[in-house]
Amino acid sequence: MTGYTLYGRNASPYTRRTAIVMRLLDLPFKQVVVSPFTDLDEIRKVNPLGRVPVLRLADGTCLVESACIIDHLLGDHDGDHRILPAGGPDRRRDLQLVALCQTATDKGVLAGHELLMRPAEKRHAPFLQARIDQARAAMLALEDRLADRPLPGGTPSLGEITAAVTLDFLDGFMPFVLRGLPLPATRSLGERLEATDSFTAQAPEARMGLDPAPDLS
Amino acid sequence: MTGYTLYGRNASPYTRRTAIVMRLLDLPFKQVVVSPFTDLDEIRKVNPLGRVPVLRLADGTCLVESACIIDHLLGDHDGDHRILPAGGPDRRRDLQLVALCQTATDKGVLAGHELLMRPAEKRHAPFLQARIDQARAAMLALEDRLADRPLPGGTPSLGEITAAVTLDFLDGFMPFVLRGLPLPATRSLGERLEATDSFTAQAPEARMGLDPAPDLS
Repeated sequence: MTGYTLYGRNASPYTRRTAIVMRLLDLPFKQVVVSPFTDLDEIRKVNPLGRVPVLRLADGTCLVESACIIDHLLGDHDGDHRILPAGGPDRRRDLQLVALCQTATDKGVLAGHELLMRPAEKRHAPFLQARIDQARAAMLALEDRLADRPLPGGTPSLGEITAAVTLDFLDGFMPFVLRGLPLPATRSLGERLEATDSFTAQAPEARMGLDPAPDLS
Repeated sequence: MTGYTLYGRNASPYTRRTAIVMRLLDLPFKQVVVSPFTDLDEIRKVNPLGRVPVLRLADGTCLVESACIIDHLLGDHDGDHRILPAGGPDRRRDLQLVALCQTATDKGVLAGHELLMRPAEKRHAPFLQARIDQARAAMLALEDRLADRPLPGGTPSLGEITAAVTLDFLDGFMPFVLRGLPLPATRSLGERLEATDSFTAQAPEARMGLDPAPDLS
């Protein structure tokens, strides 16, 4: 038993990609399904910032931020660099995929917050549209980079995992963000990976489906 | 000549920490001082997302996101791991400092955007306060971790660099966020590093000083 405990819901793309990496590394873990929207006090016991994911190690150390958690796990358990190349242009290219996904997710979340976390009269259409535009630009840049890559046959890379999780998150929770955007390579990758055991075992608990976006005009 | 070109202003904490790492690695670079607020078209030529920093390599490749840029630079030029430990608990601890700084910066920026990027009647006090609270919690968690560390005598680590840059950014651009917060260890580190050549050579071009915060009550 490795003694890992992961706090967070699979509805969080950052939690989900962390959990999928752990499955691909064959690391057993207990998942405590908590959401910052409903379980803030419980999350604060392991992370004073009230954010997920949090990974508690066997010695009680709690790590925050999925990039740092994954860096730690890969350092200890990906000695043959199946998930992320050790260095050079291949690593650089894969981490650029992750970076584009982070922009898409963060801007998509801000668009969602504009609609969810403030009363209608406090919503600001230009701010919402700018966040949607940024998320779409990030996904188009991601598509460009995935279009030249073959679909992963064996273990997907960190960039590929993150791309599939990001697409599923935006489609599932805020479909107005990507509507009509041509993303054939990204969607092929998503379909390929979402059918695998590591992904289905970490399916989002629910999709709240902010759709359609309220009319702010 | 390494042929590196860095796009972004030192007023951006993500640009500034990247530039400081390059100076500590003795990597010559040209800096193109551009801001997403005023030079969006120019930035989009090197990054379709319109964000900084962007690092253009000698072969024309453009990298985005400071964490990825720094990972690439350290892989090529920090073979003796002066800036970031190669692995194990020391690397994990240093990257956790970076993670806390990222939360503090991102939430501080959202607080600033609430005041700068929407008309007064579209501002929402509870959203602003929640972002300020998150930034403060992140800085207090950072303070806890820095309190047990001696000040760096030689080359500072990536976590220490990022901590100093984050403090300077929040103090300089949105002082209402950290006002009154006890951060003695973080401030000692900041004073120590801001006096060094790598930091003074990359001083912010200006501090716009969103202070005091407008009354939203």
